[in-house]
Amino acid sequence: MKSAVLQLAAFGGLPLFPQPVHVGQPNLTDRELLLSDLENVLKSGHLTNHGPRVKSFEQAVSRVCGAKHCVAICNATTALQIAARALQFHGEVIVPAFTFIATAHAMEWIGLTPVFADVTEDTHTLDPASVEACLSPRTSAIVPVHLWGHVCDVDSLARIADRCSLKMLFDSSHAFGCRSGGKSVGVFGDAEVFSFHATKFVHAVEGGAIVTNSDDLADRCRRLRAFGISGLTEVSDAGINGKMHELSAAAGLRSIASLPEILSANQRNRQLYERVVSHLNGIRLLACPDGTETNSQYVVAVIDESHFGLSRDQLVALLRAEGVFARSYFMPGCHRSSPYRDAAPGIHQRVPLPVTERLLQKVLQLPTGLATTAEDILRIGGLISFAHRNATEIRRQYSLRMGRTRFHEADPSGTHDSSLREAG
Amino acid sequence: MKSAVLQLAAFGGLPLFPQPVHVGQPNLTDRELLLSDLENVLKSGHLTNHGPRVKSFEQAVSRVCGAKHCVAICNATTALQIAARALQFHGEVIVPAFTFIATAHAMEWIGLTPVFADVTEDTHTLDPASVEACLSPRTSAIVPVHLWGHVCDVDSLARIADRCSLKMLFDSSHAFGCRSGGKSVGVFGDAEVFSFHATKFVHAVEGGAIVTNSDDLADRCRRLRAFGISGLTEVSDAGINGKMHELSAAAGLRSIASLPEILSANQRNRQLYERVVSHLNGIRLLACPDGTETNSQYVVAVIDESHFGLSRDQLVALLRAEGVFARSYFMPGCHRSSPYRDAAPGIHQRVPLPVTERLLQKVLQLPTGLATTAEDILRIGGLISFAHRNATEIRRQYSLRMGRTRFHEADPSGTHDSSLREAG
Repeated sequence: MKSAVLQLAAFGGLPLFPQPVHVGQPNLTDRELLLSDLENVLKSGHLTNHGPRVKSFEQAVSRVCGAKHCVAICNATTALQIAARALQFHGEVIVPAFTFIATAHAMEWIGLTPVFADVTEDTHTLDPASVEACLSPRTSAIVPVHLWGHVCDVDSLARIADRCSLKMLFDSSHAFGCRSGGKSVGVFGDAEVFSFHATKFVHAVEGGAIVTNSDDLADRCRRLRAFGISGLTEVSDAGINGKMHELSAAAGLRSIASLPEILSANQRNRQLYERVVSHLNGIRLLACPDGTETNSQYVVAVIDESHFGLSRDQLVALLRAEGVFARSYFMPGCHRSSPYRDAAPGIHQRVPLPVTERLLQKVLQLPTGLATTAEDILRIGGLISFAHRNATEIRRQYSLRMGRTRFHEADPSGTHDSSLREAG
Repeated sequence: MKSAVLQLAAFGGLPLFPQPVHVGQPNLTDRELLLSDLENVLKSGHLTNHGPRVKSFEQAVSRVCGAKHCVAICNATTALQIAARALQFHGEVIVPAFTFIATAHAMEWIGLTPVFADVTEDTHTLDPASVEACLSPRTSAIVPVHLWGHVCDVDSLARIADRCSLKMLFDSSHAFGCRSGGKSVGVFGDAEVFSFHATKFVHAVEGGAIVTNSDDLADRCRRLRAFGISGLTEVSDAGINGKMHELSAAAGLRSIASLPEILSANQRNRQLYERVVSHLNGIRLLACPDGTETNSQYVVAVIDESHFGLSRDQLVALLRAEGVFARSYFMPGCHRSSPYRDAAPGIHQRVPLPVTERLLQKVLQLPTGLATTAEDILRIGGLISFAHRNATEIRRQYSLRMGRTRFHEADPSGTHDSSLREAG
């Protein structure tokens, strides 16, 4: 552990983690078993197009969700598009401003207009009051996001959707295996979309799924996933290729089988982080909303600069230099990403987004998952604690360097030709 | 071999191929080597997001095409969308009516209007005269298809595109490894899109790619493939997830390495088919256009019912019952698929499509690829020859059965509850 500020890697010391630790490092369990599954796929010759492993994967996902149908898709962004088309979204769709950009982009890609609503400070999910403020005669749907695996205020959102006859499609990319009010995520709204991307705690390398209890909607999604083909020579819909293939499905099946193991690793990690930061002023971990259960796949810390002594960006830069590849999702905010910011005023943003703006400045995500050990977390906790204790001197060093700090050599956010770059 | 018409499986005899032979059976070579590659991917932990195998795959594709850039995509339909967006298509896009529905659907999905032009009888690719007839002030692009791996009349199409300032994106899904006028497919138009779906002779299980010589276009496609992200915290475009993952890329790399072997199997198969049908009246194999080289991945037969004695549909039904799963792509024709047929008149079809209409009734595709042996082809040739010699009696049997014939038990086009179904 560091004993002086100038030993920090940001200021030229050796990084604490020469091999960096990541947010979203793929969880891989049972590699030998998976390899044998992959071999069986290759031997079978049935590599894609409605293969047996995709069907088993769909059954496994449905089972976890307690929902009737799952339609496996090549990725969650495509799944959002297919579900939105199957639900006949049109005009405007209300989405949170504080989410991964894909929620908005999936709508924009198929000609819909994402309109950004604010989130609540304590859950980071859609604020029903802000949704109300975004409604217009052109609104056809709401796409709430169970961010960080924290379930939205599903009841309040359902009341708005019912009252205004809006469709509701949950972007549940982060929320596989989560629950609210005794129900599993997957049964809310008209449908829910999951991500099984490699960075998700359960994954199919790349993958997504649409989950619904509606027979009719599931049928439409299945057709849209495979070119709208409804018979050997019939094409009833303008569909695309959204198929997941058998190698991905095999990986997804093994991953779901390991869900309990990964879940308890996530929970243990979350508790350890809680223990190492709970005594520090100005930093707290975001808690799961009351009455809900999370998969704990993200450890989200909220920094209050005035008490912690450093800004979120300063802390992230310090951690990253040490090889703790913390993230500051979702800068710069969907509404300030150029495709939306550069549109005519009032198109995508028509309500203030004060919570989103604040969160963009003060939240960070810490490494977790199977690849993160208890020892790693204790060392990360030590670093955070050291940064907090030495905040004044660290700020002085930042100031001497005019904000420029050294990057970890494996950091993709560092420049290629120099280890020095503007931080934050 | 059959010695009497009633021994034909369609009329109750035993199928010649209890294990059916398919069009587009996946070519899998070097399974052990591929398995070891897949193991290395899993060991590396780098499963997707700009991994090393995707980069190698892109280099290998570029090399085959003699083109500067390849952007690997999860499938060709998504690749068409990304390329069309990167090229800023708008309004109407001219596509052939005789193609797999995905060519049109990819455009329709992103709000463009596919307008169907006719193809030529001798190449099955876009007829430049028909393209001219489809032009309107709203036309922004042409999307020709190198159908069956037969290269389009690229020069005539380029003249139209140049004269009218239209973009040109080739759907080269069938045409990896083909050449025209000494140039490889991949260098024509603004960009070309390949399919590496499992049914293609070289494949990445599911996969596609955009190939271009334009640095700027390649950059835009790369951004659109990964959510429009242009830096750690910058989003410059409204992109989606079009990423190919490392397991797919590993399969694609092994497949490209086997290209020469698969190509010569295809060529040998094509020659054998030629030999077994050349002496029969009313059936001929479609020839590769002069000055071009094909990958021979499709063996396309054209039936002239008045000379062959049976219709294409009758022959396909006979073959399928025997376990020769011939296909009759692309029934019912893009323009007569419900999403386009049901639109207002003149939107998608504004010129007559007589060649497309004829081809839809008279072409069929025969099994080929590594899984099809010389012995298979001789037996298939024997069946076709038998059907031709006994056409009168077969027609009488069809008539007695009012067109209803027996299906192969593995035939997905048969009904589930009965082995009898309307054929053709």
